[in-house]
Amino acid sequence: MSAQSRTITLETPARQEFFDVTEQLAEFVREAGVDAGIAVVYSPHTSCCVLLQEESEDVTYYGTQLILQDTLNVLATIAPPTRHEGQYLHPGPIHIRNAAELRDELPAWGLNTDGHIISSILGRSEIVPIVDGQLVLGEFGRVYFGDLDSVRPRIRTVHLQIVAG
Amino acid sequence: MSAQSRTITLETPARQEFFDVTEQLAEFVREAGVDAGIAVVYSPHTSCCVLLQEESEDVTYYGTQLILQDTLNVLATIAPPTRHEGQYLHPGPIHIRNAAELRDELPAWGLNTDGHIISSILGRSEIVPIVDGQLVLGEFGRVYFGDLDSVRPRIRTVHLQIVAG
Amino acid sequence: MSAQSRTITLETPARQEFFDVTEQLAEFVREAGVDAGIAVVYSPHTSCCVLLQEESEDVTYYGTQLILQDTLNVLATIAPPTRHEGQYLHPGPIHIRNAAELRDELPAWGLNTDGHIISSILGRSEIVPIVDGQLVLGEFGRVYFGDLDSVRPRIRTVHLQIVAG
Repeated sequence: MSAQSRTITLETPARQEFFDVTEQLAEFVREAGVDAGIAVVYSPHTSCCVLLQEESEDVTYYGTQLILQDTLNVLATIAPPTRHEGQYLHPGPIHIRNAAELRDELPAWGLNTDGHIISSILGRSEIVPIVDGQLVLGEFGRVYFGDLDSVRPRIRTVHLQIVAG
Repeated sequence: MSAQSRTITLETPARQEFFDVTEQLAEFVREAGVDAGIAVVYSPHTSCCVLLQEESEDVTYYGTQLILQDTLNVLATIAPPTRHEGQYLHPGPIHIRNAAELRDELPAWGLNTDGHIISSILGRSEIVPIVDGQLVLGEFGRVYFGDLDSVRPRIRTVHLQIVAG
Repeated sequence: MSAQSRTITLETPARQEFFDVTEQLAEFVREAGVDAGIAVVYSPHTSCCVLLQEESEDVTYYGTQLILQDTLNVLATIAPPTRHEGQYLHPGPIHIRNAAELRDELPAWGLNTDGHIISSILGRSEIVPIVDGQLVLGEFGRVYFGDLDSVRPRIRTVHLQIVAG
């Protein structure tokens, strides 16, 4: 039995975007020498998500997989991009004051409420079973990390964890 | 290797509301003496959910975190509060009869269909990795249990489980 | 400690439909002889989902649980059934060409974009804790596998995995 972990660091743009981390996860499983168990792909960031999805093959001008852009488009109909304060309840005045005084952040950086909500809808982690040393991803399955904060470029961490027998 | 479990009992109000269980989970991890593995926070109730989200700092008059109220508001646009029978397909006549005859429940207690649907969208559990004996929650991450049944006060159970190496 | 896996094979119809796999999961846990740990129910298919939900008792003419049909109805308001190409971005021209040339698929088989999106919203897996050799499902909890591709009948696999102490 073992529990091993690894992190991936990503530079993300000032728009909602996804990153394919399938190869890094597969490499981690191979190097961990694990025969059976589960792999967890997890975002410690509260405006990011982790998804399993097929590869669209076609992409947008930005390079986004079409099926992932469709997913963002559908969710934007109920949680539209945050354009200004007051559009959502969050961020409120205490949050904005603390962001400035304690974290040296600009007020506009708090305008990512839609990203937090979509993170809760799409989920912060995925489990992939490991059988016979292989990830059970199906023929077309890919693992994507999504940054749903469209306000500014960020440095993000993806957390990979294997719990194995 | 070990698998340990613990439960938290909560009294919830007759409205959709969230409860911060981060401290109880962290205490469980400390007392479990676990160095590496995963913590699972799970709702055995089908009209509740578990979420990871940042703390809003600001709250509503009811004390609800603004970002969590925003999340409920967004989901209420597609799954609005159940006001009367027939608004959704569920509960149907067999459910209402069984609720009365087998479980001594009032018909109106079945008017929580939106809570069941939102539970499926937000999810019934969250995984948090444990590394070096610490939960990987990020700087602002909190663990929330949500009761999405707004019909009546309930006694609810949150299930915590650690699977560790 | 052990990690054991098992698969269930299902024949699914040309509509979005759910299948109750609770008994197969409970039988697996019994036969695995596991006292404590977690059971993972996972879809390797990218247009399917796994849900925990109460039993509605009432069903539609098709035999679908009312609460699950309500869930599909709510999600169809934001991700309506794919009726023709161009309704969503996916599938694009490369996908359709590859489907025909590499996988011998008809173009219309690609019209399942709503199924892929709803799969991401409802989630590809569920965790159920195992305590004292029993699944922690609550009084009414059932485990459902959902096929969200309504284009054609499919053969689908549900992956069950136990990670135990």
